[in-house]
Amino acid sequence: MSDTVMTSATPSARRRPRFGATHIDMSHGAGGKATHNLIEGLLVPAFSNPALDQLSDAAVLTLGETRLALTTDSFVVRPLRFPGGSIGELAVNGTVNDLAVSGATPLGLSAAFIIEAGLATEVLIGEIAAMAAAARRAGVAIMTGDTKVVEHGKGDGLYITTSGIGVVDPVLQLGATTVRPGDKILCSGTIGDHGVAILIARGDLELEGDIRSDTRALTPHVAALRQAAGAGLRFMRDPTRGGVGTVLNELARDSGLGVVLWEDQLPLRETVQGACEILGIDPLYVANEGKLLAVVAAEQADAALAALRLVEGGEEAAIIGEIRTEPARMVLMHTHFGGTRLIDMLVGDPLPRIC
Amino acid sequence: MSDTVMTSATPSARRRPRFGATHIDMSHGAGGKATHNLIEGLLVPAFSNPALDQLSDAAVLTLGETRLALTTDSFVVRPLRFPGGSIGELAVNGTVNDLAVSGATPLGLSAAFIIEAGLATEVLIGEIAAMAAAARRAGVAIMTGDTKVVEHGKGDGLYITTSGIGVVDPVLQLGATTVRPGDKILCSGTIGDHGVAILIARGDLELEGDIRSDTRALTPHVAALRQAAGAGLRFMRDPTRGGVGTVLNELARDSGLGVVLWEDQLPLRETVQGACEILGIDPLYVANEGKLLAVVAAEQADAALAALRLVEGGEEAAIIGEIRTEPARMVLMHTHFGGTRLIDMLVGDPLPRIC
Repeated sequence: MSDTVMTSATPSARRRPRFGATHIDMSHGAGGKATHNLIEGLLVPAFSNPALDQLSDAAVLTLGETRLALTTDSFVVRPLRFPGGSIGELAVNGTVNDLAVSGATPLGLSAAFIIEAGLATEVLIGEIAAMAAAARRAGVAIMTGDTKVVEHGKGDGLYITTSGIGVVDPVLQLGATTVRPGDKILCSGTIGDHGVAILIARGDLELEGDIRSDTRALTPHVAALRQAAGAGLRFMRDPTRGGVGTVLNELARDSGLGVVLWEDQLPLRETVQGACEILGIDPLYVANEGKLLAVVAAEQADAALAALRLVEGGEEAAIIGEIRTEPARMVLMHTHFGGTRLIDMLVGDPLPRIC
Repeated sequence: MSDTVMTSATPSARRRPRFGATHIDMSHGAGGKATHNLIEGLLVPAFSNPALDQLSDAAVLTLGETRLALTTDSFVVRPLRFPGGSIGELAVNGTVNDLAVSGATPLGLSAAFIIEAGLATEVLIGEIAAMAAAARRAGVAIMTGDTKVVEHGKGDGLYITTSGIGVVDPVLQLGATTVRPGDKILCSGTIGDHGVAILIARGDLELEGDIRSDTRALTPHVAALRQAAGAGLRFMRDPTRGGVGTVLNELARDSGLGVVLWEDQLPLRETVQGACEILGIDPLYVANEGKLLAVVAAEQADAALAALRLVEGGEEAAIIGEIRTEPARMVLMHTHFGGTRLIDMLVGDPLPRIC
């Protein structure tokens, strides 16, 4: 069964959205539908090229026999420090993870700083140290950089843009068009921790709770999966801005297949669930910064799960769903209460500046 | 003569400055002494690795037999559009040029946008189009990207960070430690055009003048030099933020040799000179965005100059100085009036947010 499937919706066949807003607003940065419209309505048509058109976490380019991955992300998280991490740690781990889920071993990172005049030097020193420590833990070097300063009132302390290059494993063939009906969907641990930790850290909600960001490098998780699942590893993504719900919607759309989730199987901390209920947000759309979603062939799924659970930060990994032919291009969740509900793309702007 | 020289001052032997400021101010972004103290006092010690320690426009890393160049720059220029260019064009050309002066052929670029909420969509569309056009002209693709949105009042319309990777010419051995006494210093055209165009465009000076930014890709200029000078091509740099004066100071420091300039030979538009006099700034420290400084062995200097002058944007190229053993680690200019003056590193903050 897993070898006969149509992938009618290749990226190039995708209908381009029109970008209708006259001004950019916060929703365009939230990672949901508005962000997609911005990227696919404005950026992709202008820059169109085969690597960009894949819209993956990293562009893959070939150099002789070698495939190189190139990725970039700006980090504008507020506040700069929060329980479990800080902007500097996030900036390194985020780019390391974009390379890792592309099946690439990092060669090096770059870091560009936009500093608001008036920032205390000790804050900057703290973030530089956090970046250096995160890079050391991930086994990657920050090889080049840039610093710019903008006037007080034209920034928010510190923005950091990291880019990374890596060498893609020649054996792996990852991508939405590689997944097959029957494949299992693995999640490496509890969802929503990062986003809720940030919201609580902002202090403008009447919420307390010992929730820490899950920021970490996913390199060892990816290595464990590669070893356990081999060619059965079909797709990986780290569900950051927009959360698990957004990644699975992209997967359904780009594969032309259906994604089925079991709510009972979603790893979710009680404290995060409670906070989400109070805030009226769905943890499926809340950002993670140290979680891996993977699609693995059914035959390798149990071995992959067992391997993932042996890795630090993967102890609570679970098989949360599977790929089916129907409902095509949609994400359907079987709820706690025995019903089903469609998980759509995130609309609106619940969590600005989460990363 | 050109083969016997001591390069006593290797980068690793360089004394690290201490960073003493308690807060970051605009001078730390101006490209002069304060920026150097920030980079070498805070960033380099924390991230220390062989590629970063070179402090070049791009880090060079090896992948098997191949040398790859990785570079990044954030662009925060104000205003977004100015005579002769715009932030989007600058962001592409700047990164293309950092690769070009490293002797690298670009493989691809990334672009990360930090957008202030409230930015008119048409402004964003204009910059995306400018980037696409600049990339097309430079023959390079924008392969991946990121978009973030920050609240109104936490940005300034649009900041763009571009990164690039390229393959370094295996024959070229470029660097400050490669230059030799007797080598000539070539400049590809008039200096200070970009910085003065920006200052006039801001409109807060009582200045008018038909001065346009020189933003352009330097790829053809570098190609012409490589062909004409061969192994006689020793060092290249694009004198952006901090200007020609800063690049030559870095060259003197990192080579351990003396740099001698002839003011008479500096290509300088009368309008730019006039504006600089009124503003009380030295064109040697004013940013360029489409000029190349190169050090070429004396034997190849005339051929290199002739080749450069045949390239569009290189018509006014000149030999502006030479390398000598003395004054070691300093830049000395022979002035119009027959005297000499030391050109030191830029101190203070004459031109914030120039790129």
